[in-house]
Amino acid sequence: MRILVLGGDGYLGWPTAMYLSARGHDVGVLDNGVRRQYDHELGSGSLVPIESLRARVKAFEEVTGDHIACYLGDLMDAECTYDTIGGFAPDAIVHFAEQRAAPYSMIDRKHAVYTQTNNIVGTLNVMYAIGEINRDIHLVKLGTMGEYGTPNIDIEEGWLEVTHNGRTDRVLYPKRPGSFYHLSKVHDSHNLEFGCRIWGLRVTDLNQGIVYGQQTEETELEPRLATRLDYDAVFGTVLNRFAIQAVLGLPLSVYGGGSQTRAVLDIRDTVECVRLACETPADRGEFRVFNQATESFSLQEMAKVVQNSYPGQVDIEYLDNPRVEIENHHYAFTHTALESLGLKPHLLSETLLHHMFDVIERHRDRVDHDLLAPTVNWRQSTRSRS
Amino acid sequence: MRILVLGGDGYLGWPTAMYLSARGHDVGVLDNGVRRQYDHELGSGSLVPIESLRARVKAFEEVTGDHIACYLGDLMDAECTYDTIGGFAPDAIVHFAEQRAAPYSMIDRKHAVYTQTNNIVGTLNVMYAIGEINRDIHLVKLGTMGEYGTPNIDIEEGWLEVTHNGRTDRVLYPKRPGSFYHLSKVHDSHNLEFGCRIWGLRVTDLNQGIVYGQQTEETELEPRLATRLDYDAVFGTVLNRFAIQAVLGLPLSVYGGGSQTRAVLDIRDTVECVRLACETPADRGEFRVFNQATESFSLQEMAKVVQNSYPGQVDIEYLDNPRVEIENHHYAFTHTALESLGLKPHLLSETLLHHMFDVIERHRDRVDHDLLAPTVNWRQSTRSRS
Repeated sequence: MRILVLGGDGYLGWPTAMYLSARGHDVGVLDNGVRRQYDHELGSGSLVPIESLRARVKAFEEVTGDHIACYLGDLMDAECTYDTIGGFAPDAIVHFAEQRAAPYSMIDRKHAVYTQTNNIVGTLNVMYAIGEINRDIHLVKLGTMGEYGTPNIDIEEGWLEVTHNGRTDRVLYPKRPGSFYHLSKVHDSHNLEFGCRIWGLRVTDLNQGIVYGQQTEETELEPRLATRLDYDAVFGTVLNRFAIQAVLGLPLSVYGGGSQTRAVLDIRDTVECVRLACETPADRGEFRVFNQATESFSLQEMAKVVQNSYPGQVDIEYLDNPRVEIENHHYAFTHTALESLGLKPHLLSETLLHHMFDVIERHRDRVDHDLLAPTVNWRQSTRSRS
Repeated sequence: MRILVLGGDGYLGWPTAMYLSARGHDVGVLDNGVRRQYDHELGSGSLVPIESLRARVKAFEEVTGDHIACYLGDLMDAECTYDTIGGFAPDAIVHFAEQRAAPYSMIDRKHAVYTQTNNIVGTLNVMYAIGEINRDIHLVKLGTMGEYGTPNIDIEEGWLEVTHNGRTDRVLYPKRPGSFYHLSKVHDSHNLEFGCRIWGLRVTDLNQGIVYGQQTEETELEPRLATRLDYDAVFGTVLNRFAIQAVLGLPLSVYGGGSQTRAVLDIRDTVECVRLACETPADRGEFRVFNQATESFSLQEMAKVVQNSYPGQVDIEYLDNPRVEIENHHYAFTHTALESLGLKPHLLSETLLHHMFDVIERHRDRVDHDLLAPTVNWRQSTRSRS
């Protein structure tokens, strides 16, 4: 199968591209390099050193003999989008190429507008390119479990059967997320479902939980194949950040009371879920939604898992919550679709966090401690940070 | 009350500005003039001659003695948005300033991207400006009944009580609309509801039906105060278009079988609804949704009303539907909120369509017949029309 990975230079895009290639697919990656620009902007960087996209692709070919086609360009540039999709002629497109940090989208007006414009327009360009070039291409789009917010009813996989005044319909699951980033993904989902209706597109929307871990079978092959690991308060996600704080001897910083519950999954499950979605395409006209998460924990529970796993003293501190979110809420979500396709989840309780602690230990000198404290406050509506 | 009308040069923005001014409010209008640019682009134009925004405002002051403050600028320009809102210091902002034609958004990729970017970013800029300048400002935002699509359950006013697996929540009403334009308004609604949660904004989202009519108490005062009347297949809305076809001796063109049902209202009710919303603000943090429509008819029923009202021979023709939409569907919607605030609807059955026929008759020579046939096809995914 020919698979084009958009955003193939990112934390998950790169391991996914290698994983799909190693399982026999012809893989191409497109990336505009903007994730590395955010690092320059924020003064942050990956804890683990990473190679440039070209060097990674070359190293992967040296190590495995498998070629990954490499395209440098931006989905906001429609001609680039059409040329890449037309040139590579994929059977499936895996779309990771969006600004993916909630705090980044909440910095100020400019970052909110950037996030929504970049994500929505990029996805519209991909939809139109598929519509024109080949409507059989299966689009596997990364969404997030955060799109749902914290409803007081169980979260289903994208659709909900509703009975109201004695009548019944299958509706898009109503969403009420917690940042302009998450909202951009809600907007994408609505646009994509429409594309399935009017053009008969095939779309799988993967509502992914918070990913933890940094190693997959392929990244472990050699250091040049490593993927990034973010520890800063803007791009660092919660479990990874806790692991890094533990190794550094810093208290694990829980926002608010810590009873907020979130869906999570292991990075090794991410790459497998994407493979399963690609190899079992949605039907023509089908807007298919999978909840790509295997477990859920409260922030406090996540902190305790890290505290208990780490072979040393670990404290937990509770910061004033910089986000506006409900802390005590119902949380139950369906996640049977990917498991019925064959996913065998790696559960947090069985994960060797020690392996991750070792990786962090090796690179602990690269951490800038100033970047760990949250500086973006949801209650502010700032015009421009500068 | 100080009320700023964004998009105050448009079909409804201009009559609304005059209506609010005539009822004792201090009114300002902001417009970027882009609606007149669309006319240049499409070769279309208002059936009724209209003055420039400056000339209209001047004429209104001559006729009534009331001053309307006039700002020329674009909501995509954040500085302009902040300066206008900061300078005028409104108590309420009425936001009509969006690209508002479904067919225009479906012309090609460029027009879809333009529509979503323009509408979403403009509204984000207004939200941020209110967030920074004065969070007490009440935002009255024009949405559309088309956002809901045609669900198989009754349409409520923005929110829905759902029971699922024995648990209950009040959720945003799930929407599945039929164009990239309608989707842009769905995206706005999600962003605005978030703004109410995080910044305590006051928002009223008016999900408006298809407006018909061209005259209000103020537009009738003298010809320089007229508002536009669109007859082309891109910007002309269905009832107005039928009235024009009747006068021109052309068959009324129904798309598809004509059993598609749509919510409608009289232009005189639009201006009154906006007044009622402004004068009874939403609470701080409240995302309030009103269904601003008074009746619903199938396209076939609308055609028959026009056929029966016109004092001459009128035929009805059925065109292949250029849109992708369900033709036979349930349609029932709640519209009690505005009536409970005091709206006394003008119903289509009691409307003097003859008055409208006279207006059209006076300007019939201005019609370019080529613009009446639909040329935008929902099934195409064209990169660029040119």
